[in-house]
Order: sequence, then C-alpha cells, then structure tokens
Amino acid sequence: MNVDIGNALAREADPGVAEASLERLDERVGRAHDRIEGGIDDREFGYASLALPADADVEAIRAAVAGFDPAAVLTVGIGGSALGAETVTAALGLEGHHTLDNVDPAETARLLEALPLEETLVNVVSRSGTTAETLANFLVVRDAMEAAGVDWTDRTVVTTGDSGPLAELAERHDLPTCPVPDGVPGRFSVLSTVGLLPAAALGGDVEGVLSGGAAGRAALSPSLFDCPAYAYGAVAYALEQRGATTNVVMPYVESLEPFAEWFAQLWAESLGKDGLGQTPARTLGATDQHSQLQLYRAGRRDTLVTLLRPRERPDRPIPEPDAGELSYLDGSTLGELIDAEFEATEASLAVSGVPNVRIEFDRLDAESVGRLLYDMEAACVLAGELLEVPTFTQPAVEWGKRAARGMLDGDAEAAEAAAEKTTLRVRDRP
Amino acid sequence: MNVDIGNALAREADPGVAEASLERLDERVGRAHDRIEGGIDDREFGYASLALPADADVEAIRAAVAGFDPAAVLTVGIGGSALGAETVTAALGLEGHHTLDNVDPAETARLLEALPLEETLVNVVSRSGTTAETLANFLVVRDAMEAAGVDWTDRTVVTTGDSGPLAELAERHDLPTCPVPDGVPGRFSVLSTVGLLPAAALGGDVEGVLSGGAAGRAALSPSLFDCPAYAYGAVAYALEQRGATTNVVMPYVESLEPFAEWFAQLWAESLGKDGLGQTPARTLGATDQHSQLQLYRAGRRDTLVTLLRPRERPDRPIPEPDAGELSYLDGSTLGELIDAEFEATEASLAVSGVPNVRIEFDRLDAESVGRLLYDMEAACVLAGELLEVPTFTQPAVEWGKRAARGMLDGDAEAAEAAAEKTTLRVRDRP
Repeated sequence: MNVDIGNALAREADPGVAEASLERLDERVGRAHDRIEGGIDDREFGYASLALPADADVEAIRAAVAGFDPAAVLTVGIGGSALGAETVTAALGLEGHHTLDNVDPAETARLLEALPLEETLVNVVSRSGTTAETLANFLVVRDAMEAAGVDWTDRTVVTTGDSGPLAELAERHDLPTCPVPDGVPGRFSVLSTVGLLPAAALGGDVEGVLSGGAAGRAALSPSLFDCPAYAYGAVAYALEQRGATTNVVMPYVESLEPFAEWFAQLWAESLGKDGLGQTPARTLGATDQHSQLQLYRAGRRDTLVTLLRPRERPDRPIPEPDAGELSYLDGSTLGELIDAEFEATEASLAVSGVPNVRIEFDRLDAESVGRLLYDMEAACVLAGELLEVPTFTQPAVEWGKRAARGMLDGDAEAAEAAAEKTTLRVRDRP
Repeated sequence: MNVDIGNALAREADPGVAEASLERLDERVGRAHDRIEGGIDDREFGYASLALPADADVEAIRAAVAGFDPAAVLTVGIGGSALGAETVTAALGLEGHHTLDNVDPAETARLLEALPLEETLVNVVSRSGTTAETLANFLVVRDAMEAAGVDWTDRTVVTTGDSGPLAELAERHDLPTCPVPDGVPGRFSVLSTVGLLPAAALGGDVEGVLSGGAAGRAALSPSLFDCPAYAYGAVAYALEQRGATTNVVMPYVESLEPFAEWFAQLWAESLGKDGLGQTPARTLGATDQHSQLQLYRAGRRDTLVTLLRPRERPDRPIPEPDAGELSYLDGSTLGELIDAEFEATEASLAVSGVPNVRIEFDRLDAESVGRLLYDMEAACVLAGELLEVPTFTQPAVEWGKRAARGMLDGDAEAAEAAAEKTTLRVRDRP
C-alpha cells in the first residue's frame, strides 16, 4: 500500500498543508507513535486493537464454524458488530453474506423470505449481549426458523462477551460461541472474531487478511514520511485543522463500497468529539462523479477527497462500438475506462485546488484488504492522538440508547424529553 | 407530508434560525415562489422539472414497456439516469431492478452472471447518447446477451434525446424508445420517463407516483409557513448560511436508502456552487445511530440532520424473549422499536443543540413517494433561488469528463494534466 499526499500540499490545494508544517508535525507524530506503541505493548483499552493481527483468535473462529458449509450467512448485529464483517466478505468477493443491522419490519420480512433458512448460518454478534436491535432481530429470526421447521439451535453461532443475556442463551442451548477481543471497541474489531467469522464460514482467506494486517503493524514507524498509515492520519488531521471538515472516501472499486461505510463509522465515532472531527462522506467512484463532483470542485472549501484504487484488477474489454462517435472507446477495457476516470477526477480536483489523497494497493486480495483495514485504523488512532480526543469511547451515543429503551418500557424521563420537543409544523394549506 | 422545523429554531439549536429571521426570510420566499411559478408556467430550463407530474409522458412509458413482463430490469445509466429509477422501484418495494451505474469490470461480470438474461429487460438511459460509462456498459451487456444466445434487440428499450449515437442505434435496430423530457436536468428527471420506466415495467403504480407529485405541485404557495417543501428548503438555506454546511439525510425506512442517494445528487449538484452549498451525507436510521451519531452530537457544529419516517408501516411483533434482562422488549414490535429510536435520536440531537428537521408522511405508498420526491425538488429549487446559484447546471463536472475521454484517445492536454500531478508518495520503509 502507498499513500500519495502530493495533492494535499499547500502549493497545490487550499486548504492545504505546507511542507514545512508537515516537517514540524512529524515531531508530534514521533511522540504519538511512542504512545501508540506503548499502548499496543500493554494492550491498553483501544490500543489493543492494533495488536489484533497477532492476537486474533483464529482457532476460535475455525472451531465455531466447523461443520458448517452454509449457502448463506446471516449476521445479526449493528454498527461495529456488522460493518467489519460486511467489509471483509464484500472485499474478498464472497457471495452469500447478509446482515440484519436495522429494525425495519419490511426489510426484515423481505430478507427472511429471500434466505434459504435451512442452509443459512445465523451469526449473532453483540459484545454486551443486550443491544436492543440485535436481540429483537435475533428473536424474530429464531421465530422464523422455527416456523420454517428449521432447528435454529443447529444453525446459530454467537459472538459475545463472557456474560450477559446472549452468553446465557448460548450456554442454555449449547451454541458454538466466539469470544469478543478484550480492550477492542466494536469499530476497531474487524481483524478479530467479530469481523472475520462470516468470511471464514464462506471459505474466505482470513489468514491472508490477518497477514496483511500484520504487515501494517510491522510498517508503523516514527515518521509520517516512512509510514503510509501515519501519512494519511497526519494529513487528514492537518487538513481538518485548516478547515477540511469533510472527508470524502471514494473507492474506485465496487467491492469496497462497504469499506467506505466501515471507514465512516471508524472516523466519525472515533474523532467526532469535543467540537472536532471530520464528517465522513461515503461515495463510490466512478459513479459519484456524476453526483457529487460538482460540489467537491465548486462548493465550500471544506473537503478532503480520499481516492482509493487497486493498481491491477481483473479486466473486461469493451466490445467494438458500431457508431462512429464512440470510437474513443475502441480497443479500451472497462478497467482502462475506470482508471482514466480516477485520474481525470484526481486532476480535476487538483486543478480546483481541492485537497485530495491517493491510496493505492497492488490488487484487491486478502492481504491488501487486511493491510488497508489495519492502516486506516492506525491512521485514525494517530489522528485521535494529534487531535487530543478520546479516540476509543463514544459517550454521545449513550443518551439516545437509554432514551429509546426508556420509551419502550415507559420510563418517565425519556418520554418527557421526547414530549417536550419544540414543534413548528408546516402542513399544506387547508 | 409535513415538515417540523421546531428543532431548527435558534431557541433550540446552534446553529439555529431565529423565528424573526424566518419571518423576514419569508418575504424572499414569496418572491422566489413568483420566480419559480413563472419558470414553471414558461417551461424554462430547469423549472420545467416542477411541471413534470402533469407533463410526464406516461403513454410513452406504457408503449415502451408494452409486451414485456420481465423477471428483471437492468438499467444501464449513471447519475440522474439511474438514481431516480432506483429510488422509485425501491420505495415501491418492487423486486428485480438492477443498475449498471459504474464501470468496475468485476461488478459488471458479477451482475451479468447473476441475471437471467433471457428474462431481463435492458433499459439504456443517456440524454446525450454519448455518456462513456453507459455506452461502454451497454456494449458489454449486448455482447453478453449475444453470447448467451439472447436476441438483445428483442429485450432492450432506450431512453435518450432526439439525436446522438444511442438514438441512431435505436433506429437502426428498431428498438422501443422513450423521449427524455425537455428542459429537465437528469437529477430532476425522476418524475419522467427516465425515473419511471423501470417501475412501470415491474408493475409499479407510476400513476400513483405522479399523482403524489401533482399534490406537491398544488401545495406550492408563497409562504414557507404554508408549504412543507419551501419550509424545508428555506430552513436548509438559513442553516447553511449560519454554518450548517453538512446536511445529513436519515430515513428511518430501508426502502428509502436509494432516496438518500438521489437526494445527495440533487442537493450536491444543484447547490454546490460559487463556494456555497451543503455536503449531503447519506445515512440510514436506526443503523447509523451506531455509526455516526457520536459525531453529529459532539463533533463540529456544522450539521443539519434531516430525519424522515412514515407514520404507519407494516409491522412485526418481537417474539417473547427468554431472558429477563430483555424484558423491556416484551410485547413490543419492530415498528415500535424503530419509532422509539427515531424519537430518541431526535431528542438526543435537540438536547445537544444540533439542528434537525422531521419530515413525516402517512405511509410509504406510491402517492407519498411522488410527493416526497416533488417536495424535495421544490425545496432544492427554492434553496437555489435563496442562495442565488445557477441551480440547474453542473459546469464543474465537465472538465473531468473531457479529461477522461482525452486520456483514452491519447489527448495530449489531458495526459499532461494527469502527468503533471504533484506527488509526495509515502511507502513502507525498505
């Protein structure tokens, strides 16, 4: 993997980072690196995430999925319990992974109808074992399997902490279980049981993913000029401080679409604190050139665009057109076209002075996926150190969770907060 | 449909809009309304979009799809030629609509392998008939159908302008064609042949969608206090001017996920001009509470959150849990849970002073979908008037299109622009 930050320099972009500023920032990067290395070594809360490629419990994953050869895997989980697993299976091109990560009754019904329940492995994931959406969905899935005459206890694996309702349930029904890693927040758990079980169940090369992660671990070094992950994290931080408060993540490969969602959680929940942070915008190249590029080039100067692509990919020739005006496509391939669009978009952003960073890897395989995920986590942890925010907590989501629960069981305070809402309702004229 | 802007008022939110400011702004809304009505009456470029519910050529759609009863529809188009159609079929719950809106060779191959080509209707959409991605994909699809022994000329409909390579091709092969509406930019074309053909081919109630659009047309009125669409557009504008430069669109219903993408194009490409505009962020409730809410509540104060939901929906009870700690779910439904989460999230944003707007409609049906789409277009046009930007053009995307084309046919200037890129590449230490 390499990271090209040329188009984020002040001589190209506004906001941009002067090279002298980067040199000065590099001293702070060195100190942050020491802090991060110490945290990894001591498996401190959060920092333990960056020890995962080595610490991941592959044995537990293999044991949990042993004996299953599912046509489909249904992950029941939300947020960090779903996005990493989705990212890995999609990036590896594994078909058959579905997730129930919402509580929309219509979507739940649609999915349960579409799945071959007797050949589906249900993968329930919740660290606490109490996540309302996950437990509600699991109860619905269990019920649907019973109604279809499928013994759900034969087709369910559980990934959860040592105690809690889900751990108790697994014990009561003798279900295969996987532990959640210690000291690892959900959004940093992709290189663990949480992120890798569905891929393993579908025959994916999880060892390859972990080996890519380990290469990322080995590449951490005290200078941003020697470490792609830190180069990205440091430049994103420096641009945030200079007004690039939106970070557009734009992979030019469809199977990284879930990666952009995973990145959005990682970036938003880790860095969105104390009035700081960047809003991640999930996009897809080349498609979103036809949707968002106008804004990026000509809107407010508050955006960093992060472009990603593999240097090689399986390709497909464009058949010969029978109309003269399309002759410029003649002899080209789809891969050449998407690469031309990548470079044209990058150049068009540069011409407008919009800061952008290019992240490239040789090809999309298990190793590069693991490397990419590890490096983005390391970049995020570095950015958190530089911003001086508590990267690994998410205090601002707790109030809403308590309130939702309170509304369901009639808690007076929650009901009151919702009832007190200021309304200014605009309706059609009568 | 109604719009509740109470949580965007200055007494609740920061940034927020003082009620006195809204009163003053309403005079400008009245003048903008006159401008918009005049534009609609004269079918001026762009404004003609808001005449579409009445002007839409339903006969042409019905004629083009007559005789087809496809298992699947494959739309080959990009940007405004795909997003509207995706939005409508998803919102109506129609299964079987697929789109090729990128030129990723792997995804194209995957899709062509998954589709039953002999039962698929191919729907090629490009106003100019020269869009590189669309034409390249169509050539690939045609080739795949030939290879599968399917006569593509029997299963292809074309939506394009009066001239251009695609119109010529349609004539040469005697394909059914639909016209594109005059004076309507792609991102405003959802209530026309462009957005409605796939839904019609799959048996959707396109007349119902247009009737909802017509209700939106009838509801336009000179005051934001009497017109939901203008209330939304005016508040979004006022908040943009006060620093809410991100607009998070968060539907609490999965089948509106493509709607959020459609909205993102509408908002970004129409308003992202002259250094102004809001960055649309596409999200999904309740899922993204577990991904983005931390940032919205505690990050930079630059965000408007737009929450959408139906007031009623098909529901599903949550089966009785067998663990005591989950008893608060007892007797609830998935619908009650997602509604509790909606209200809890809204309240938690209000508690933090983050401006948010609630958009509600009775239920998700053809009429409400048409109404929602129309009202968001009208809101966007109003916001464009208030921002004084040229809402209906997208000049900043042209450079990149020319450059991509130039790279493919060896244009020296484009190649040079790309070659001149400033690089500062960070690799692993050797």
